[in-house]
Parts: sequence; C-alpha cells; structure tokens
Amino acid sequence: MEFSVKQIAELIGGKVEGNENGKVTDLGKIEEGKPNTLSFLANDKYENHIYTSDAAAIIVGQEFQPKQEIKPALIRVENPYSSFTVLLEEYNKIISYAKNGIEEPAFIGQDSKVGEGIYRGAFSYIGNNCIIGKNVKIYPHVYIGDNVEVGDNTIIFAGVKIYENCKIGSNCNLQAGAVIGSDGFGFAPQLDGTYKTIPQLGNVVLEDNVSIGANTTIDCATLGSTIIRKGVKIDNLVQIAHNVEIDQNTVIAAQTGISGSTKVGKNCILAGQVGIVGHINIADKTTISAKAGISKSIKTPETIQSGLVAMDHRKFLKINSIQRNLPDLLERVKTLEEKIINLSSDK
Amino acid sequence: MEFSVKQIAELIGGKVEGNENGKVTDLGKIEEGKPNTLSFLANDKYENHIYTSDAAAIIVGQEFQPKQEIKPALIRVENPYSSFTVLLEEYNKIISYAKNGIEEPAFIGQDSKVGEGIYRGAFSYIGNNCIIGKNVKIYPHVYIGDNVEVGDNTIIFAGVKIYENCKIGSNCNLQAGAVIGSDGFGFAPQLDGTYKTIPQLGNVVLEDNVSIGANTTIDCATLGSTIIRKGVKIDNLVQIAHNVEIDQNTVIAAQTGISGSTKVGKNCILAGQVGIVGHINIADKTTISAKAGISKSIKTPETIQSGLVAMDHRKFLKINSIQRNLPDLLERVKTLEEKIINLSSDK
Amino acid sequence: MEFSVKQIAELIGGKVEGNENGKVTDLGKIEEGKPNTLSFLANDKYENHIYTSDAAAIIVGQEFQPKQEIKPALIRVENPYSSFTVLLEEYNKIISYAKNGIEEPAFIGQDSKVGEGIYRGAFSYIGNNCIIGKNVKIYPHVYIGDNVEVGDNTIIFAGVKIYENCKIGSNCNLQAGAVIGSDGFGFAPQLDGTYKTIPQLGNVVLEDNVSIGANTTIDCATLGSTIIRKGVKIDNLVQIAHNVEIDQNTVIAAQTGISGSTKVGKNCILAGQVGIVGHINIADKTTISAKAGISKSIKTPETIQSGLVAMDHRKFLKINSIQRNLPDLLERVKTLEEKIINLSSDK
Repeated sequence: MEFSVKQIAELIGGKVEGNENGKVTDLGKIEEGKPNTLSFLANDKYENHIYTSDAAAIIVGQEFQPKQEIKPALIRVENPYSSFTVLLEEYNKIISYAKNGIEEPAFIGQDSKVGEGIYRGAFSYIGNNCIIGKNVKIYPHVYIGDNVEVGDNTIIFAGVKIYENCKIGSNCNLQAGAVIGSDGFGFAPQLDGTYKTIPQLGNVVLEDNVSIGANTTIDCATLGSTIIRKGVKIDNLVQIAHNVEIDQNTVIAAQTGISGSTKVGKNCILAGQVGIVGHINIADKTTISAKAGISKSIKTPETIQSGLVAMDHRKFLKINSIQRNLPDLLERVKTLEEKIINLSSDK
Repeated sequence: MEFSVKQIAELIGGKVEGNENGKVTDLGKIEEGKPNTLSFLANDKYENHIYTSDAAAIIVGQEFQPKQEIKPALIRVENPYSSFTVLLEEYNKIISYAKNGIEEPAFIGQDSKVGEGIYRGAFSYIGNNCIIGKNVKIYPHVYIGDNVEVGDNTIIFAGVKIYENCKIGSNCNLQAGAVIGSDGFGFAPQLDGTYKTIPQLGNVVLEDNVSIGANTTIDCATLGSTIIRKGVKIDNLVQIAHNVEIDQNTVIAAQTGISGSTKVGKNCILAGQVGIVGHINIADKTTISAKAGISKSIKTPETIQSGLVAMDHRKFLKINSIQRNLPDLLERVKTLEEKIINLSSDK
Repeated sequence: MEFSVKQIAELIGGKVEGNENGKVTDLGKIEEGKPNTLSFLANDKYENHIYTSDAAAIIVGQEFQPKQEIKPALIRVENPYSSFTVLLEEYNKIISYAKNGIEEPAFIGQDSKVGEGIYRGAFSYIGNNCIIGKNVKIYPHVYIGDNVEVGDNTIIFAGVKIYENCKIGSNCNLQAGAVIGSDGFGFAPQLDGTYKTIPQLGNVVLEDNVSIGANTTIDCATLGSTIIRKGVKIDNLVQIAHNVEIDQNTVIAAQTGISGSTKVGKNCILAGQVGIVGHINIADKTTISAKAGISKSIKTPETIQSGLVAMDHRKFLKINSIQRNLPDLLERVKTLEEKIINLSSDK
C-alpha cells in the first residue's frame, strides 16, 4: 500500500508543513527515521531524532517549534499519539480484512453455517452443527469442534483449537495455538493409589471483545461453563482451570495460572507469572503483582497484593526491605547479646 | 441424545419417585435447575435449590426427606455423588466413541498399521512405520512422526505433536496442543561464547493410563528415554525436560517445570508452578506446594515441601509467620537497644 | 542404518581393539549395554558397566586400562566424549536430511519461492510472497504467513506458526508448536473501564543459529522488530513480549518470561521460570537463577542474580540462610527481652 502525505493528513485531520506529495509505504519508529515511513513525536525526549530523520512525514503537536531544519514533512494535529493510534487501527483493519474466502482444502462438517465475509484458511477444520458469524477469520490449522458458536468479526489465528460445545463471542481475538475447552484436570484418588478420571462435560464461554494470547489454555467446566466475561484480555501461556470465572475487563499477563472454580472480579490486573489457588474469590479492581501467590480470597476491592504468600503491597515492601537488611539485624542482636553479657558481669 | 428418567434410574440402580417419563437431554448443576436436565444432591448446603428446580430428575440419597413440594422426579440411590460419576463416565464414553472412521484428507505414511475402531480426523498425519492400536481417536491436526507406537483406546486431541520413535501406552489421554518428544535443551558452550547443539536422539515413553494436559511439552532423552510411568496425570503447560523419569501415579499441576535427568517418585503430588532442578531425586509420596523451588534431592518419603528455596512445610509456615511480623521484630530490637543504652548510662 | 565398528573408528579417527566387524545399529548409554549399540566411557564412575556390556563397541580414552575381560570392541581416541558428540551430530544430520520433497496436500500461496532440498510436509502452509532458503525442512501443520523469509538449513518442526512479515535466519531450529510473531499484549485503558487494542504492526526477527523451544511464544513488536540475535538458545514454554531484544548467545531456560521492550545482553544465562519486567536492560554475561524476579536494570556485567525480588547471589544466600534461622533469631530476641527485664528489676 502507498499513500501520499496529503492523504494521511486528511485522514487524521492534520495540516501539512513541507512536501505533501511525499510517499508513505510504512509506519515506523521516530528513532529509525527510514525513508517512506510515517512517525510521530509525542515525547520531547525523542525530539533530536526529528532532525536526522529521512521519514516522509512526522506527526507533531500544534506547539512544536523546530530548532533546526527538518527533512520530513510535518503533519500538525492536536494529539500526535492518539492520531497515530487512529492510523494504526485503520492500517490493522486493512490488513485483517484482506483475508477472505475459502482456501482449499478446508473442512466443514454437517449442518454448520458460516456468515458472509468469512475467511476459512487451508487446513482449517469446522465440525458439525457449528454457527459461525459474519466476517469471522479462521486461519489455517484452526480446529473448531462440534456445536461451537462464534460471534461476528472474531479473528481466530493459526492453530487455535476450540473443543466441542464452546461459545465464542463477537469481536474476540484468539492468538495462535490457544486451546479453548480442554478437559479440566479432575481425578479422584482410589484406594490402590491410582486415579480415576472425572469426566469433564462442561464448556468454555468467551463473551464479546475477549482477547486470548498465544498458546494459552482454558479448560472446560466439569459441568456448566468456565466463563470469560466481556472485555477480558489474556496474554500468552496463561492457564485457566475448569469452572473459573473471570469478570469484565480484567487483564491477565503472561504465564499466570488460575486454579479450578476461582472467581476473579471486574477490572482486575494480574501481572505475569501470578498463581491463584482454587475455590476462592478475588474482589473487583484487585491488582496482583508479578509472581505473587494468592492462597486466600481477597474481599476488599482495589487493593494491591504482592509476595510469594501474598499480602498488601505496602506491607510487602516494608517486610522486603527489612529482609534485605537481615544481616544487619542479626549483627544488632549479636551486639545486644554481648552488651547484656557485659552488663550482667558488671553488676 | 435423550433418555427417560426411568432409563437413567435403571442404569444406576435407583428407585424413581415422581414422573419416570420425564425426558433428560443433559446433565446440569443443581444450582441451575434447567428443564430436561439431571442433577444430584450430595451436600445439604445445596438442598434449597431442589425446591425451585425445573430439572427432570435429581439423584438423592435414601435418607433425604423433602421439606417442601418438589417438581423434579427423585431417583433414590445409596451414594448420589458416585452414582452421578458413573453417569458422567457413561456419557463421556458415548461422546468419545462417537468419533469413528476417516475424514478426508488424512495422511498416513508407508508401512503404518492402525487398529479397528480408529478415528483419523481431517488433516491428521501419521508417518511411516507406525503401529496404532484399537479404538484410538486421532483428532484433526494431530502429527505422529515415524516409528511411533500408540496403544489401544488412547485419545489424542487436536493438534498434538508426537515426534518420531516415541511410544504411547494404552488408555492414555493427550489434550490439544501437547508436544511429546521435542528436542531436549542441550548445548555445549564453545570457547568463542557460542553454543554447539548436542543432538537429542532418544525418545519419550508414556506408559498406560497417562494423561497429558493442553500445550504441555515433554522433551525426548539425549539417548534412551524420557519416561512417564503408568497412571501419571499431568496438567496444562507443564515442562518435562530430557531424561526425566516420573514414576507411577504421580500428579503434576499446571505450569510446573522439571529439569533434565531428575527422577520423581511414585504417588507424588506437585502443585502448580513448581520448579525442580535437574539431576535430583524426589522420594515417593512427596507433596510439593504451589510455586515451590526444589534444588536438592528429597530422600524421605511422604514429606510436604514449600517455599522458593523449599523446606519442610511446617518449618515454612513458622518462618513465614515470623517474616510477616518482621516489622514487629525490628521494633523489639530497637526497644532493646534503647533500654541497653539507658541501663548502661544508669550504671 | 547399520555400520561396522571399523567404519565408525575411521569416521572418528580411532583405533580398534577387538572385533572390528561387529555391527552397530544404534547409539546407547553405557549403563544399558545393549547388543549392536555403540557407547562411550568418559567418566571413571561408569567403568564397571564396561565389563558387563553387550555393546558392539565402546569409545575409550588412550589411557584406559581394562581391569577385567571386556566383550565389546574398544575404539581408542583422544577425547571419548567429543568423539561421541561428533558421531551424534553425523547421525542427526542423516536423520534430519532424510526428509525431502513435498507431501500432498501442502499449501503454497502466490509469488512464494522455495530453495532446493526443501521438505514441505503434508498440511504445511506457506502464504504469499515468502522466500524460503535451501534445505529448509517444513514439517506437517507448519503455518508460515505472508511475506515471511526463512534462511538456509533451518528446521521448522510440526505445528510451528510464523506470523506474516517475520524473518527467520539460517541454521535455526524451531521446535513443535512454537509461535513466532503473535500480537503483542497492548491495550489502552479507556475511561469506562474497558480496554482498546493497540494494533501490533511490527514483526519478529530471528537471526542465524537461533533455537526456539516447543510451545514457546514470541510476540511481534508494536512497530519495528522484536529481535533474537545470533546464536540465542530458547527452551520450551518461554514468553518473549513485544519489542524485546535478546543479544547474541544468550541462553533462556524453560517457562521464563520477558516483558515488553526489555533488552537482554550477550552471553547471559537465564534459568527456568525467571520473570523480567518490561523496559529494563540486562548487562552482558548476567546469570539469573531459577524463579528469580528482575524488576530493575542490571548494569554491571557478569553478576549472578537470585530471589523473588532479585539481588546479588551471594547476598541472597546469606539472607536466605538467616531467614531459615528466623525462629532461632526470634528466640534470641525473647531471651534478651527477659534478661533486660531481669537486669532492670535487679537495679
């Protein structure tokens, strides 16, 4: 794709200073300054790069005053960063919607329906009795089991596996290799030391606007549903066990694991490599620091939890600071012991 | 599928009270009480749900005495929970065995044999010289390399990859995206700072009744075999490195990692996000708490280990409790220091 | 494959003692001593196995003096271990290069080019405008998006997914299920509590001689490239976030996670389950212990870092040792308090 600087300025409602006929073929970082790219300057820290840039154009704020000569055209807007984001989104839409139609061979079972605007990549698989909405993009090697529903505009990247009976909302985004609806980890111990498998018959429900990261796994419920509510964003390699519920707009970073039947509230932020035990509740707007271990319900909303056996973050910081000075504390106790001996013998 | 309440009562040897002609099309939770479902009441805590339920039937114990009118039929048995589990298993079998035959296109190499009752999903791949047992279910996008053996009744879900020469036992269950037999992580440092790859020529052996979770990875041995013994149950996103051996009936929860050449004993329980270093031994019936780090062999059977640098669980609890009170301990030392100063000056 | 003991001795420049016509069909461990195998003795600890071995031949050093009769032939070399490694590599090459040609059905888009000696497994997918080098091995179920470049001799195992625009170097090795170029985890919080997706338009660049483990995920940059430099070795289930750069010859063990925009230096060693926050720098030759959490830049090269809130390793060991004795320290403080009371009342 190729645009002129003028076309881009019109798209974001900006005013051009310089060569409005320059050609833009890609977006780029201001530090890189490559020819035919478009960048933005939102942070004064990066201003020096503008004077050496070979870019076609740079989006700048109304107040920007160049201190030297500038080669790229300037496009002046109210808010350079948000104008740039608008462009990114437009660009992304063009790319996403480029994939269309059916590449052969692609498999579809009996009594399944797909909406208009669909992309079914080569080697993608749709089972029986599925209902797939409009503009859904199903990349190569995607597996969709029987009786699955997928809402409009959802993008399912290469190699995602969705087990039978799961429901995926509209405007969801599933990154490559994610597994939705795998059997929950349920085994009943027997007297002879072996384990008997507890059948896992439920499903997974992803509501609308949910994002799932690459190679993340979400187990189906034993009965009923493992539920990921509207707007939840989950990063790569996250584990969500059976019967878990994650409420609206909660964000979960990479490699976090949530054990069975736990309920996580709305608008929580779980950092990376967090672990949460099963059968507890996490209050709305809880923030959990990276690598924290949560073994009890968190009942008060809006707290920050940290530590291997997690506690309030401020307490954690205080204790952590004392821990780092334990050698000093030990010395102080030794000194006290010596002084006591001296005092006692002085008596 | 549709059953009458009477048919279900016969299957589990129960006695019907109420409408034995009600239709059951699904299993459900007692809290949900949906029409045409079957639930069970095993815990008095849930009794109130029975009076508002629209289910077709509820399995109850012999001693249950309703306090109000009940809409669903009751099926009386000795142990409602275990009767329900029997039903779940039957249901699961029906579902599992529903998949049969070959969906095209499916690939099979030279000199490979498959047993009767097999399911080979579309886009599944079987290499050369493989021996696949009876009633094996190979879902779409499964990759089975050359010279692999798979025992009877094993289920291999979508997108599992099994490298060449691996051996999978009977009645195993491999969840979607699991990787069996990837190259072990072996690199020899060179004088110039680069690393030379140490070829990994061994395989992975899964004995009978082994379960492997979604997107779990098990590396092949450098030479010989990485071995997972009978009845071992492994959850999602677990990492098992080269030359590891896991003995019978050990259970490993999600996101745990076991480094190269370590041997884990029988009937151990490893919780989530545990890490174990290489070249050590873990005694039988060891329990390792979530997020624990194990850096030394555990020689005594039946202990519980906890902590980032793991120790006996009771010791961990004690130390953890003192740690949480470190600000108090620090204050006590400060007080002592002041008193000593006073005492000294008093002298 | 079958070799004579003599052929193998010639390959590694060794001298045979014993039956040089013995047949070798496999490599084996010295402890196992199976017939028709070849082993090596590099560590005196294993010497006793040589006297009971049924192997066809054992590679030994010049100085080895048998204490009893030995059944296998001996092949004498300067360095048994490195000679054996040479053999492993030869063996591996034979195996790797056995796969050749195109298995049908395999998909290739428009204007894509592949070099000679290629293997394209059944159900593998190559998008549009790709450039694939010589002797590249693309296993079944591999997905390669549009505009991807892959260098010579790279091996891409089953089910790897490479998103559009990524660049993979020569002599790379990608284990099964790895995801290269998934969308970075970038979401802008909105006033109503929801999140807006920040489009991720960059790519991933793997330079030459890079190894990527099974089910590892590497996100594309928001703009520009996530970069993995020459000779980097990454284990299974590792997460590399958007805009990260890993410099030459760094080694990263399983289940480690690196957050967005962090730069890791050359020749670092990151052990398993390490977590690193975003936007920091790790100096060259840093070693990070298993399970450590790194929340600040590490500026001095060649340090070792350990702990949940990481610190210098020696300090960590000291503090850890005091922590394990906290019950004792607490007792000492109690004793001091009692003594002070006694002293005060004595006055």
